[in-house]
Amino acid sequence: MALTQWSIVSLLLILSIKVKPISTFQSIIQMTPEKETLLAAEGISGKRRGVDLYCESWKFTVETNDAGSWTRIPERCCDFVKEYVTGERYVSESEAVADNEVAYAKSLGFSGDGKNAWVFDIDETLLSNVPYYAVHGFGTGDSKSEIWFLGDNDRENQKRETRSEIFDEVSFDNWVDLAEAPALSASLRLYRELQELGFTIFLLTGRSEFQRNATESNLLYAGYTNWKRLILRGDSDQGKLASVYKSEKRKEIEDEGYIIRGNSGDQWSDLMGFAVAKRSFKLPNPLYFIA
Amino acid sequence: MALTQWSIVSLLLILSIKVKPISTFQSIIQMTPEKETLLAAEGISGKRRGVDLYCESWKFTVETNDAGSWTRIPERCCDFVKEYVTGERYVSESEAVADNEVAYAKSLGFSGDGKNAWVFDIDETLLSNVPYYAVHGFGTGDSKSEIWFLGDNDRENQKRETRSEIFDEVSFDNWVDLAEAPALSASLRLYRELQELGFTIFLLTGRSEFQRNATESNLLYAGYTNWKRLILRGDSDQGKLASVYKSEKRKEIEDEGYIIRGNSGDQWSDLMGFAVAKRSFKLPNPLYFIA
Repeated sequence: MALTQWSIVSLLLILSIKVKPISTFQSIIQMTPEKETLLAAEGISGKRRGVDLYCESWKFTVETNDAGSWTRIPERCCDFVKEYVTGERYVSESEAVADNEVAYAKSLGFSGDGKNAWVFDIDETLLSNVPYYAVHGFGTGDSKSEIWFLGDNDRENQKRETRSEIFDEVSFDNWVDLAEAPALSASLRLYRELQELGFTIFLLTGRSEFQRNATESNLLYAGYTNWKRLILRGDSDQGKLASVYKSEKRKEIEDEGYIIRGNSGDQWSDLMGFAVAKRSFKLPNPLYFIA
Repeated sequence: MALTQWSIVSLLLILSIKVKPISTFQSIIQMTPEKETLLAAEGISGKRRGVDLYCESWKFTVETNDAGSWTRIPERCCDFVKEYVTGERYVSESEAVADNEVAYAKSLGFSGDGKNAWVFDIDETLLSNVPYYAVHGFGTGDSKSEIWFLGDNDRENQKRETRSEIFDEVSFDNWVDLAEAPALSASLRLYRELQELGFTIFLLTGRSEFQRNATESNLLYAGYTNWKRLILRGDSDQGKLASVYKSEKRKEIEDEGYIIRGNSGDQWSDLMGFAVAKRSFKLPNPLYFIA
């Protein structure tokens, strides 16, 4: 996906912020789920059957892009999403996608000229911001807490409001500066596999240039190394839809003679538009939508 | 999706066929699920937790098209798929997509010149063949029964084998000739809503011209009326990938001056390629894949 500065800031603004400190951010995404979480992740709580069926169906429409542009998780599905992103199903679905990607990558026979490229998004693709959302949205244990997010389409409308919320912006900068977002383990496995197979790796994110250093630090901290290029939004990219900005950047990669064999992202806007990869892989993300 | 003659016939060949007569085909898709089915549909059977997590993740990769071309349901997921397509979750996910479609259609302001089109696939979109699969694949109650299906890509390889299986071809023709496939209730609701809103409706199916009469009869039987045109594969369309054949037909619709506002299908090949609709809607289908 393409987290933009203002989108992130908007998130902070809107979340029911009840910060509950946790010892280590990165422990959350890969923690062993407690029994209750496990059960809930599979929709096992009998009394919540109807809600889970509703939320399961809502997730279907989000992951297939049927829902189109959406700005907030349905209130009744906040627990469902919390349990999903902190439970084993998120891990399992991500691993299943990585399995598809590895199988595809291995099936390709190509020469070792370095021109075979793979494009990765960063947030919720290589790195997980779930620890951040956990603190600001669902880490409170408050079942009424709402987790929602504004897509790029809504950025302009929210800027004024956003700018009046200094605290949220500070909180966001702190999170980025921490550079401690953990790797999505399935993606790290894929990344290393692709390097062994000889792919040239491009990182294409909606983050902005001013976040380059923190982003690089975070990627290294999470275990990613030796990418060919990290592409962030420059001044001229601000305000563009993610699907347009990312298509333009893919086109530039192609114009340099690369063949984009694969593209991994958690948003359809990471994958669609023009100069699309030979195969695109949609990772799960029921947390937010970016146009 | 685009069921072709040979694909259907191939299915018959490969299924573990233990025909168990059921009283009425159309009763199955909308039956009240028994408790066991309900529970299983939500992954509630504790001992099957690992399997359900695996199958849930497999379904994710299929519905997002991450899996790419696939030819068979993983053996351990046959029960999962059976329970899904005969349970309330399939209904619920279909209804959620229809809700997205209705909301989108209502949001469009357009003139009443009849040039605003909506394209529907037929099998597993307007009509459900689940009663057919139930009889031939999972209607036996045999947990080892395999339900799988060959996509268009595999057609050529299977033709010889298929032709040696007279019984299966007869069984397939019987099913089509019965013309009793029930409507997917969510799609019927959407269809009628679109007609009230003034959309011109095109039906674009991978079925062949020789099935025109049976297909028309079945559509009327299921409650669909007043479509503008029913497009089936003619002689010159045979052997084409569904995505190509359907793109060509959408292009013809556009060349007549229609704007394809929406497109509904259970296969990505119903929706992708060229002359794509302004919005495309992917319905659930973990039963088979068509390229």
